[in-house]
Amino acid sequence: MANLIDSDAEVDDGRLPGLEPTKPGEKPRVVVLGSGWAACRFLKGLDTKIYDVVCISPRNHMVFTPLLASTCVGTLEFRSVAEPVSRIQPALSGAPNSYFYLASCMGVDTDKYEVYCEATPNAGLPSDPYLFKVAYDKLVIAAGADPLTFNIKGVREHALFLREVNHAQEIRKKLLLNLMLSENPGILEEERKRLLHCVVIGGGPTGVEFSGELSDFIMRDVRQRYSHAKDYIRVTLIEANEILSSFEVGLRQYATNHLTRSGVHLVQGVVKEVLPDKILLSDGTDIPYGLLVWSTGVGPSQFVKSLDLPKAPGGRIGIDEWLRVPSVEDVFALGDCAGFLEQTGKQVLPALAQVAERQGKYLAELFRKIGKENGGKAGCAADIPLGDPFIYRHLGSMASVGRYKALVDLRQNKDAKGLSMAGFLSWFIWRSAYLTRVVSWRNRFYVAVNWATTFVFGRDNSRIG
Amino acid sequence: MANLIDSDAEVDDGRLPGLEPTKPGEKPRVVVLGSGWAACRFLKGLDTKIYDVVCISPRNHMVFTPLLASTCVGTLEFRSVAEPVSRIQPALSGAPNSYFYLASCMGVDTDKYEVYCEATPNAGLPSDPYLFKVAYDKLVIAAGADPLTFNIKGVREHALFLREVNHAQEIRKKLLLNLMLSENPGILEEERKRLLHCVVIGGGPTGVEFSGELSDFIMRDVRQRYSHAKDYIRVTLIEANEILSSFEVGLRQYATNHLTRSGVHLVQGVVKEVLPDKILLSDGTDIPYGLLVWSTGVGPSQFVKSLDLPKAPGGRIGIDEWLRVPSVEDVFALGDCAGFLEQTGKQVLPALAQVAERQGKYLAELFRKIGKENGGKAGCAADIPLGDPFIYRHLGSMASVGRYKALVDLRQNKDAKGLSMAGFLSWFIWRSAYLTRVVSWRNRFYVAVNWATTFVFGRDNSRIG
Repeated sequence: MANLIDSDAEVDDGRLPGLEPTKPGEKPRVVVLGSGWAACRFLKGLDTKIYDVVCISPRNHMVFTPLLASTCVGTLEFRSVAEPVSRIQPALSGAPNSYFYLASCMGVDTDKYEVYCEATPNAGLPSDPYLFKVAYDKLVIAAGADPLTFNIKGVREHALFLREVNHAQEIRKKLLLNLMLSENPGILEEERKRLLHCVVIGGGPTGVEFSGELSDFIMRDVRQRYSHAKDYIRVTLIEANEILSSFEVGLRQYATNHLTRSGVHLVQGVVKEVLPDKILLSDGTDIPYGLLVWSTGVGPSQFVKSLDLPKAPGGRIGIDEWLRVPSVEDVFALGDCAGFLEQTGKQVLPALAQVAERQGKYLAELFRKIGKENGGKAGCAADIPLGDPFIYRHLGSMASVGRYKALVDLRQNKDAKGLSMAGFLSWFIWRSAYLTRVVSWRNRFYVAVNWATTFVFGRDNSRIG
Repeated sequence: MANLIDSDAEVDDGRLPGLEPTKPGEKPRVVVLGSGWAACRFLKGLDTKIYDVVCISPRNHMVFTPLLASTCVGTLEFRSVAEPVSRIQPALSGAPNSYFYLASCMGVDTDKYEVYCEATPNAGLPSDPYLFKVAYDKLVIAAGADPLTFNIKGVREHALFLREVNHAQEIRKKLLLNLMLSENPGILEEERKRLLHCVVIGGGPTGVEFSGELSDFIMRDVRQRYSHAKDYIRVTLIEANEILSSFEVGLRQYATNHLTRSGVHLVQGVVKEVLPDKILLSDGTDIPYGLLVWSTGVGPSQFVKSLDLPKAPGGRIGIDEWLRVPSVEDVFALGDCAGFLEQTGKQVLPALAQVAERQGKYLAELFRKIGKENGGKAGCAADIPLGDPFIYRHLGSMASVGRYKALVDLRQNKDAKGLSMAGFLSWFIWRSAYLTRVVSWRNRFYVAVNWATTFVFGRDNSRIG
């Protein structure tokens, strides 16, 4: 079963440089695709006395996605929300047969136990594209998902996303640029209003958090530091259904009230098309914008779609209760790119950091068990009892809605009864919850310093680069 | 005297939008070109009760250039070395007739008292390029200088400079990218050595500081976090004459010994040409490189060259002892773009932050004096006694040569006798000197936190964007 992205242009893999299969006596090699929550939690827990590890990702750091919205407006620094993979798993840079490769995986051959990669393009490489292959004993696919655009025309071209640190940097740059450009002499009133209209599409936790941070930034910082712009800048949040639809009804009401009071304009509408300077809604309305942030959830990536593996409902890689891809040996998938197969009788879990993180932890434990039973090498794990399957217990949902205000929904699922909270206490819980997830003490320290500095000095508004 | 960059393509300025001349009863308008040390120190000191102020620069923040080298290797964060102009002079964002324009000045008409500008390009502007004009009562040109490349082929294309925050970001990205790419499977020994060869051209304070920081980064961080690369990475500093030639001979010897002991390879040579992967020296040697940083001083920019104003020896804008451009009224120049005219009998001052900062302070005082005598408006200052001319007193030169080591040369000039120091005490003085120059308490605090964090946790090595 050869799973190359484009089987017509199949790589002549015999001639590719790369890592050959491990020899008897060498440690088994785990290849991890990705560097998000799932991959990094797995890497952190992996027993490197048993395994060598190779991590392949176009990004050498993990992003604390729940804190990303805060970096756009200068509450947090970009670096505070990124943790280098090699700090999470030191073997990647220190152990003789473990590596981190800055590359994208282009295909997997589950028969040959090989993955095919393309190095991140750079002038210094011997060829462009620079292709190589890596043989694995165990493969862990944690390559994440892509933002959903529902094939709406113009989204990819004109909207900004909020999934990576450089996305947040782009949003920040654009916001500050628009603030400055709106002051240019000769700009008409209407044009100035458009430049300073920030539109967020999608009323999930990310969209709500970003809107909250943005309105907070406007109320506290723009009024003081860009006083020429203060009567023109506005935030609009567009959602097709209801904001925070997975939250308890009381919390939804609280969020709606709070956002409205903070000056966020809530619009129920469906986007039909995005043009360079305006959004067309399906009811015929035009919405001119200067900054457009798109946050309507995620779906299977091109890479996941291209893999010739069984799929879960919705198109993610299909897995069983032990996070294995059951039709092939020694391949595991987790995080946003994986979902329970229909025959497991379980629902596909939501694309949450919480799920990914728990799966990463579980799989690292499973690998320890397999390794101790000498099942680490390719094709040796078939008869090893795996123990308890992965069970997800939802710890609750959290969403910040601006300064010192957050929602915490501690119900197990949408229909259950349980505790829900809103306000300062939840904000405190929310912040603490994330602080303890932030992997290194260095970054915990930095985040705390950032919050304290913002509190004392206000936000930073230098536009760099 | 119309000073447009390209007089053939003279702008039809009658139709340009912009700020009209100030009316009687309105405050006089000072237009400042630039946002470096000179411009920002002037802005900080300007009495905004007397003047309205318009600052025009393609950069909305000041860069603490002496600390820039530290940001490349992660000792300091980028944001810690940048201070937004509107925080330095709050009137720019708060006063009704004061503005900051993110734009480049393209020309000056000293007869019409107007400057012509092009806004930083952006999709949101009504036209591209978006041109406008600003009328001034007083013009302060502090537009800085450009790096000198001596017209050596390939420098602009392949070398990185170290003058702006985004330059430092590029250097950091490239360094971390090369570190990661050198691990790619199938990279030959020789190729790996090339990728990890960091070459610095120019042995002035910036080149020496950057080499020191780099070797420090390699000794402390690379060995631990990129252990696969540790036997390949090297730093070479190429200088045509002597390193730190303006420093006292004992200090030069100290710097040479210290750098050599830290593993920096010092080469005396003249660069003939720069190719994408190697440098050709005039003696016929080839030097393959992966990262090339060019730091051989600065010279007049295109903008300064294009101005039809008297020039000082070397091509800077010629000024008298009161920092006026004597042939035209109400035009002042300072910092790296200005130099004393030959007839003043004074030497052109070196392109140092120290000089620019002192000139900015002096000019702000001069403007206060002029303003109080009602000489603020265009054409009204001719008969006002200006008082003492600007006199520069050199406070000494400082250069860091790596962790906890710096040189301080307190002599008034190259040939004088005086105090010189090297080692930990000078490092401490150097750091403190810069900390107190860093304009806001916010950034002083951040820099201190950065240094402390680096000390405790080591440097950051995430590669963002």
